[in-house]
Amino acid sequence: MDAMEDKAQIQEAIKTQGEVVRKLKSEKASKEQIDEEVAKLLELKVKLGGDEGKHQFVLKTAKGTRDYNPKQMAIREKVFNTIISCFKRHGAETIDTPVFELKETLTGKYGEDSKLIYDLKDQGGELLSLRYDLTVPFARYLAMNKITNIKRYHIAKVYRRDNPAMTRGRYREFYQCDFDIAGQYDAMIPDAECLRIVHEILSELDLGDFRIKVNDRRILDGMFAVCGVPDDKFRTICSTVDKLDKMPWEEVKKEMVNEKGLSEEAADQIGEYVSMQGGKDLAERLLQDQKMSQSKQACAGLSDIKLLFSYLELFKVTDKVVFDLSLARGLDYYTGIIYEAVLTQAGVALVCTDAQNGAEESVSVGSVAGGGRYDGLVGMFDPKGRKVPCVGVSIGIERIFSIMEQKAEASAEKVRTTEVQIMVASAQKNLLEERLKLVSELWNAGIKAELMYKKNPKLLSQLQHCEETGIPLVAILGEQELKDGVVKLRVVATREEADISRADLIDEIRRRTSEV
Amino acid sequence: MDAMEDKAQIQEAIKTQGEVVRKLKSEKASKEQIDEEVAKLLELKVKLGGDEGKHQFVLKTAKGTRDYNPKQMAIREKVFNTIISCFKRHGAETIDTPVFELKETLTGKYGEDSKLIYDLKDQGGELLSLRYDLTVPFARYLAMNKITNIKRYHIAKVYRRDNPAMTRGRYREFYQCDFDIAGQYDAMIPDAECLRIVHEILSELDLGDFRIKVNDRRILDGMFAVCGVPDDKFRTICSTVDKLDKMPWEEVKKEMVNEKGLSEEAADQIGEYVSMQGGKDLAERLLQDQKMSQSKQACAGLSDIKLLFSYLELFKVTDKVVFDLSLARGLDYYTGIIYEAVLTQAGVALVCTDAQNGAEESVSVGSVAGGGRYDGLVGMFDPKGRKVPCVGVSIGIERIFSIMEQKAEASAEKVRTTEVQIMVASAQKNLLEERLKLVSELWNAGIKAELMYKKNPKLLSQLQHCEETGIPLVAILGEQELKDGVVKLRVVATREEADISRADLIDEIRRRTSEV
Repeated sequence: MDAMEDKAQIQEAIKTQGEVVRKLKSEKASKEQIDEEVAKLLELKVKLGGDEGKHQFVLKTAKGTRDYNPKQMAIREKVFNTIISCFKRHGAETIDTPVFELKETLTGKYGEDSKLIYDLKDQGGELLSLRYDLTVPFARYLAMNKITNIKRYHIAKVYRRDNPAMTRGRYREFYQCDFDIAGQYDAMIPDAECLRIVHEILSELDLGDFRIKVNDRRILDGMFAVCGVPDDKFRTICSTVDKLDKMPWEEVKKEMVNEKGLSEEAADQIGEYVSMQGGKDLAERLLQDQKMSQSKQACAGLSDIKLLFSYLELFKVTDKVVFDLSLARGLDYYTGIIYEAVLTQAGVALVCTDAQNGAEESVSVGSVAGGGRYDGLVGMFDPKGRKVPCVGVSIGIERIFSIMEQKAEASAEKVRTTEVQIMVASAQKNLLEERLKLVSELWNAGIKAELMYKKNPKLLSQLQHCEETGIPLVAILGEQELKDGVVKLRVVATREEADISRADLIDEIRRRTSEV
Repeated sequence: MDAMEDKAQIQEAIKTQGEVVRKLKSEKASKEQIDEEVAKLLELKVKLGGDEGKHQFVLKTAKGTRDYNPKQMAIREKVFNTIISCFKRHGAETIDTPVFELKETLTGKYGEDSKLIYDLKDQGGELLSLRYDLTVPFARYLAMNKITNIKRYHIAKVYRRDNPAMTRGRYREFYQCDFDIAGQYDAMIPDAECLRIVHEILSELDLGDFRIKVNDRRILDGMFAVCGVPDDKFRTICSTVDKLDKMPWEEVKKEMVNEKGLSEEAADQIGEYVSMQGGKDLAERLLQDQKMSQSKQACAGLSDIKLLFSYLELFKVTDKVVFDLSLARGLDYYTGIIYEAVLTQAGVALVCTDAQNGAEESVSVGSVAGGGRYDGLVGMFDPKGRKVPCVGVSIGIERIFSIMEQKAEASAEKVRTTEVQIMVASAQKNLLEERLKLVSELWNAGIKAELMYKKNPKLLSQLQHCEETGIPLVAILGEQELKDGVVKLRVVATREEADISRADLIDEIRRRTSEV
């Protein structure tokens, strides 16, 4: 295909894509969906290049990323505050690590997913990559500083060159919100605290009912062994089991047998186990199970599950926790207990629009928190291989944001994006200097205050600004008020007004805004 | 040079560098300096590659970056809280933008400094770069969302492939802390608020005395015009003037004349102007100045400086603000008022160690805040070139961190890295379950509490943990206390103990820790 043909094809594609965008707009599709299709259109235009594309500046964020506007930031701040308060309540410190690491720090930690790592351009010097999660930098930090115990949280952005499905809340740049306990401790005590933390956070965020599934890597491995899975197939069969939350057992079985070459008999045995769910009682039963009890590994895992549940009872969180043998989790580095929290209320789902047919559908939000024990990761960084046992949890903050945003949208309550308590306004002309003096006094007293940056703003536009942004009070200055040494204090919601002496103003503002 | 020779050379360099590190250690040089030299050593070892380097894993962060440990994070949080409170007091919203932008978004915005931009590797798809500052992404955000007025702050990391001088608080990854006001407003009102904000923040952070220098790009340009600088040399002469805070006038003049080809006479005229400092009076005098008054641009700038000072008087901040004609600031995009804050107290300096001779020296921390008006930047992103006037300020947070860290180090007071109010401890064995129950009750009540993750920890080690981490209270459980339905509440600082009934415990903890 020569360049001319190529160009014609792209122009054709631009035309088609243009129609897609127009159609969506006429159908009043969601802003996110339109944005996604517009982005594709713009990419095509850039591809066209040559004369047409040359001077066209593409005004967009990078693929799979987004800006947060003030309203989104207000919601984000609220969610972060809830989560950070919980982490602090449990005595966690916080650390921060650079957004990029030496490429080799990330090498060999993520299995197949390594292809999703963003590399920096080699501009001379070290080879660098953007962090893929916060766990590997944490392990690197512990090994580098020879730290053998710490309880820390870390909230920061991570990067994955995944195919973004932004309407489903999946991005290439997204926040992770991790809490981890590192150190050689008695079994299951820190593990139980991690589950308690998930329980506290999901309850406080008020996202509806949820369930926390628990399993153990050693139980999975033991199960595979007693079901006759060859050693070298553990990992790949495990990743097939991991699909059980998205696929029915029949399809999972087909993949095991047809693609992964497992015997039908072994698959059926696995099928029996992975359908089991329960609590402490199930762990006890499986410890007596003729086959399962043959695996030392499985028994170690089952005993720990039993112990874990006894601690969870004391923490009063067993109502939401279920021992589920189908839980596998993808990451290679887990060595013991693993867990995942899902929202179960039918109402909680992300509404999104199917790109193919334009129909709205409800997509289950899937897991909103997950984690587990990884006792070997720090040792991978230590020159002498010294291990530091770790257990941690990661809150799926982006999905939680998406839900909170939809809730805010659906609710009548307006999200405030500032905390301004009072607007300093004037009723007449030529009072800029008086406004500046007053607002300065308020700032001195720690009052959150603003004024319009106009010499002579209209009173109406000053009041409108308050209504739009939710500022509860207005201090109105006029010739008469200045003469009388008072300020007219207006309550925006009720429109009631009262003259307050300048000496009492600050106390009065504090009194009235602490009520709100 | 063949590979063998090359290798020998590197081995030689490793030997030399190893000695440098040993010497520093024996001299008890600062940790930062040793780390820097160790990093060089490790890089050499990697370079050596081959058999020696192959299995050697380099445990470090990328060049010019650092981790923040919990103590540093505690200081950082305190500084951020002060700054964010100030921004919120002035009614700012906040936004966030992705850490990388399309490469072309950054192109042509930073002049010569563009070479310092980090590019991402071309892995197929868009060409991306890490953000260099927060101002250009802000302008892109405004244009993209057609926002014509907003008051926003943004605190985030930016990236520059500069030669790091980490001992002087200069990194390749560092925080910026920006506040900007966008919109078409009456002259100098938002500009004055930006200066008031700098004044508030630097006062509240208690960094010692400071001065805010103010100038205007139009005054500089007008001055260059009336002094006979050719139009095409304005920018380059401006960047030479910018060096006046680091070089004496004689050297600056030499650069102008010898390197930039300016006439001696023009340079001398510039020299007269740039030595001028003052307030409103200086602006008034220069408006009458025979030469300066010939430039319309300069007059517009001088009138604005006059107006600015009249607002600053009302804001009561003129004590720290000085009109200084030598202030130039490097960035191309400024169009009006510019400013920069410097700490002036002799005591405030970063102690750092000279890499060459190992001697400690005090380095002036230079500017801790800066900003100005940039009315053209948003228009560069708008397809129709529509302008949105902006003025903003950036707080030099990394330098402030460094100073705060040194202050914390010098002070006797210990920096707490957690907010734990109480430790749940036991005096005897076999009380883990009781500890778990109690700590769970405390968490339910919102008390920040921890326990040791051991079945039978020693009382002494539980108390020691409190002393080390600054936990003020201990709830001690024993057989007798359980029988009596009480908890022994111990104040760590005074060692005083009292039996508190379980029913009163939470109130008692709240009462005692709110005093602290």
